[in-house]
Amino acid sequence: MKVPFEELKSVLKQVLLKNSFSGSKAEICSDIFASNSRDGVSSHGLNRFPVFIDYVKKGLINIEAEPKLESAHGSVEIYDGLTGPGMYNCTLGMARAIDIAKNSGIGCVVMKNNNHWMRGGTYGWQAAEAGCIGICFTNAIAGMPPWGGKEARLGNNPLVIAVPRKEGHIVLDIAMSQFSYGKMQEYEWSNTELPFPGGFDEDGALTKDPVVIRKNKSALPIGLWKGSGLALVFDIVLAALGGGRSTADITRSGNEIGLSQCLICINQENLHPEQINDIIRYTQSSAPLRSGDTIRYPGENTLKTSNKNLKEGIPVNEEVWEKVKNMR
Amino acid sequence: MKVPFEELKSVLKQVLLKNSFSGSKAEICSDIFASNSRDGVSSHGLNRFPVFIDYVKKGLINIEAEPKLESAHGSVEIYDGLTGPGMYNCTLGMARAIDIAKNSGIGCVVMKNNNHWMRGGTYGWQAAEAGCIGICFTNAIAGMPPWGGKEARLGNNPLVIAVPRKEGHIVLDIAMSQFSYGKMQEYEWSNTELPFPGGFDEDGALTKDPVVIRKNKSALPIGLWKGSGLALVFDIVLAALGGGRSTADITRSGNEIGLSQCLICINQENLHPEQINDIIRYTQSSAPLRSGDTIRYPGENTLKTSNKNLKEGIPVNEEVWEKVKNMR
Repeated sequence: MKVPFEELKSVLKQVLLKNSFSGSKAEICSDIFASNSRDGVSSHGLNRFPVFIDYVKKGLINIEAEPKLESAHGSVEIYDGLTGPGMYNCTLGMARAIDIAKNSGIGCVVMKNNNHWMRGGTYGWQAAEAGCIGICFTNAIAGMPPWGGKEARLGNNPLVIAVPRKEGHIVLDIAMSQFSYGKMQEYEWSNTELPFPGGFDEDGALTKDPVVIRKNKSALPIGLWKGSGLALVFDIVLAALGGGRSTADITRSGNEIGLSQCLICINQENLHPEQINDIIRYTQSSAPLRSGDTIRYPGENTLKTSNKNLKEGIPVNEEVWEKVKNMR
Repeated sequence: MKVPFEELKSVLKQVLLKNSFSGSKAEICSDIFASNSRDGVSSHGLNRFPVFIDYVKKGLINIEAEPKLESAHGSVEIYDGLTGPGMYNCTLGMARAIDIAKNSGIGCVVMKNNNHWMRGGTYGWQAAEAGCIGICFTNAIAGMPPWGGKEARLGNNPLVIAVPRKEGHIVLDIAMSQFSYGKMQEYEWSNTELPFPGGFDEDGALTKDPVVIRKNKSALPIGLWKGSGLALVFDIVLAALGGGRSTADITRSGNEIGLSQCLICINQENLHPEQINDIIRYTQSSAPLRSGDTIRYPGENTLKTSNKNLKEGIPVNEEVWEKVKNMR
């Protein structure tokens, strides 16, 4: 079943308003959830929405909070998110980073004590739409063992890097785990193994079995020891700058709330668009590895999916859609 | 054979002075090459030195160049490295980024038209020694196929992230390829396969065979499609900000010269050291994957090696050491 973007957004907004969200918060949050579904990331769009509302009802998300400036040193500002809606706080955070960058070339906003930002790419697209380069990362609850260990101690701590471009922004949005737990669950449901090793089995060997990996919380970091180091360092940078809760704190608390995000924005008049296009052409000029393989730049598929869904409607899981409509 | 740090540095400095380096450039460059060997990275230390001198003699490195400010927008400054010594230009670049960050919280310096920066970690340690967080990346000649392709189109484009800490700085220094070509050559020489897949064979399957990977220039990006995207995006950000030569330009020219680097520095009074130490303790509290496995934070091993080599002398390849001594 397919639903027009405006209808999806409108229903989500009504549910948020019914749950006492202010008009402007309901507008921003419904737009982000609907856009995530539009861009093909329904796991952080419609499908995540009921969980979000459940967190609101449980009081884990403070819907009245507005991010509060805690300290500023030049172009670096630290905000306390006061456990408000994560995607709302991060949208305001990136907007502020953009403002700083427009004035000073580069701006850095750290949002601590915040909730899940949903799809990190959201803030990359936001920077790119403003004509700026965006670099963002977040911490998360532990789901990966560090390299050499077997117990989950690292978050999947996604990284986003965005560069604006007339023909379509370049937006990289990657978690530090090779596969997300959501993706591994899909493989488990369809009773198939992962296309590449995605974690460790009990004997410490790499495995493609999603059941074993999910049971042991032994997801594989990208690039083995390298992604393990990256995930750790993102958490350390966030704690160093903001002093907020680390993956250790979040995991010990048992709930994935009170996260930290770093939103960096760079603004320059001339972003050398011809040079960027030459890089993309050169990269895509490689012969395919296997016949039929395509080489995509980060964000290419998102844009294609977004345009298709805007035209044809957004595919929705009917059960979730009915459930959400009844929440109005 | 082992050589004291000061002796190694002194010999390298004499060779540089004999090759018409100014006193201050010879001091900075010899210190970096000797420090790289001291820290266990002789591939970018003593062992690389003869190649560096060869490039100087061929006129590929302009030893008289001083980086020239091309444009400044607030806290973002673009420099033309005028094909000077890469490690010299990047040291000055990071020093400038540190200065900007001390004044404005965050500074970003892009060095274009530069040469190889040798070990990227150098500039991470430099930022950390100044009490700052450092984020650096570079582009490089193509040596990896993009995801879905079989011809090399991406550089290994290393990333460095450093956070200062009294007990030992955290310094992550990772290339976007799972194994470097130097490391794969070592495996080939010792006639052993890689411990994990490191590239593709002719049929597009992952392989641990260093001979096949080196022949096809089919090194594997970390995290498969994810590292492919990261390497591409670093090159794009560098080209967007500086307008310098991309991996495409460098590869088409046939020589790995005229690279670009981005050096970002963040300065904050309180970097929450207790929070950082708690993260490291928590991460290292995981049970080992296999008996005897250890969990290290990025930079831990470098510091250990550095301290050991300062005390006991730096292990050198005798053949290279004799050769370099005769270059004085």
